[in-house]
Amino acid sequence: MAKTENKRVTAAVLIIGDEILSGRTQDTNLRDIARYLGVHGVDLAEARTVSDVMEEIVAALNALRERYDYVITTGGIGPTHDDITADAVAQAFGVALHEHPEIIAMMSARWGGELNAARRRMARVPQGGDLVKNPVQGPPGFTIGNVFVLAGVPAIMRGMLEDVGPRLKGGAVTISRTIRVEGSGEGVLAAPLEAVAKAHPGMSLGSYPFFGADGYGSNLVLRSRDPDELAATVVELIAALTAAGVAQVREVEA
Amino acid sequence: MAKTENKRVTAAVLIIGDEILSGRTQDTNLRDIARYLGVHGVDLAEARTVSDVMEEIVAALNALRERYDYVITTGGIGPTHDDITADAVAQAFGVALHEHPEIIAMMSARWGGELNAARRRMARVPQGGDLVKNPVQGPPGFTIGNVFVLAGVPAIMRGMLEDVGPRLKGGAVTISRTIRVEGSGEGVLAAPLEAVAKAHPGMSLGSYPFFGADGYGSNLVLRSRDPDELAATVVELIAALTAAGVAQVREVEA
Repeated sequence: MAKTENKRVTAAVLIIGDEILSGRTQDTNLRDIARYLGVHGVDLAEARTVSDVMEEIVAALNALRERYDYVITTGGIGPTHDDITADAVAQAFGVALHEHPEIIAMMSARWGGELNAARRRMARVPQGGDLVKNPVQGPPGFTIGNVFVLAGVPAIMRGMLEDVGPRLKGGAVTISRTIRVEGSGEGVLAAPLEAVAKAHPGMSLGSYPFFGADGYGSNLVLRSRDPDELAATVVELIAALTAAGVAQVREVEA
Repeated sequence: MAKTENKRVTAAVLIIGDEILSGRTQDTNLRDIARYLGVHGVDLAEARTVSDVMEEIVAALNALRERYDYVITTGGIGPTHDDITADAVAQAFGVALHEHPEIIAMMSARWGGELNAARRRMARVPQGGDLVKNPVQGPPGFTIGNVFVLAGVPAIMRGMLEDVGPRLKGGAVTISRTIRVEGSGEGVLAAPLEAVAKAHPGMSLGSYPFFGADGYGSNLVLRSRDPDELAATVVELIAALTAAGVAQVREVEA
């Protein structure tokens, strides 16, 4: 990742969804993105929340992508008729949507040949866009220009963010290490992870759960700009997990 | 509160504060305001979060107050140097600030004659503004034009909202019902949901997925201003879901 000293790198968040504006859902993605960007040396400068209306999404996206170095959107990429984020991003960039062959291949591998129209909706990506990995579950997000389009479900959004950080240019360089826990779910991991996270507010600690051969597990990703703090925190977290009764803990390649 | 049938009344929320954009503080005011407005028949149509920078606040406030029936701001009305919301609102309206005699009287009664500069800051209100009662603690908020300026501290913000509701000229009240589906994901729900939504263009049908004990599920929220159409659509949607093979469907309290 490129490093530019003394230049402020900015981002905006665009939250898309009637469920936030109706008050039905409490957004937590803004805070998670803000912290993640902060660790990467990118300042979150503005956030907007708009409803599931094409012209609103397009207008907000165009205003924000012109003004800030990066825009991260959350929400509206599921399979239902009110999920119109991909359409809006394509319209904002003046390009067409196409069914991305990698997503179709992923979904076919999972669901077999029978991809219904709803599922095919989730394979639509604007022409010229690249995929953003989804390490949790379901189809990937995508990126086009300076815009990253992520899921609205918080656990999936956080997982996708891990594929955004390495593509950000200009902020401070961060380094990461990954601890893999097997045979223990987040119900056991949450308390020690939270305690360690609170003791290191300048770092980013993410938990990306999976269901594997030994039942639930999780990849815990630690990020920092300070290699010494990172190394100390890895030791601290492994100790805290072990003390909490987690048996299978080891560091892995990210 | 006046009820006007068939007219959509809109509002925007402007959240002011670096602590939200840095990720240090989790905002909860947006959801509380959205719910409060919904009960009063006012639709929250947009929200923006900006930093403690004069031009940013002024620009966002002017854009929002022009476009929507009401704007509610939160944050930046405390005693410290970075609390510049009153200054920004005065500038947006092109009026001067003055020390409001009622606030000075309240604060003098509480703290005696010795009002320092920091406390006097909190008495400043744009010329032509009225006070918004603070039933909790500390100085009141204020309102000018179609803008309500409230505290950022959630408990105080909620208290101030109680003095906002009676001043809103509301639209028709929207009613909602919620159907909970368990054990079936949006890939299955999307088609029947979309068919029902298309048949009722005047209603709002949202799908809010979750991952629970039986795997994927979703809360389907139906909103309408017409109780008869709402009741009929609930029956119709349950039938459509059942026909699509969804086994666990029931109405729940929203």
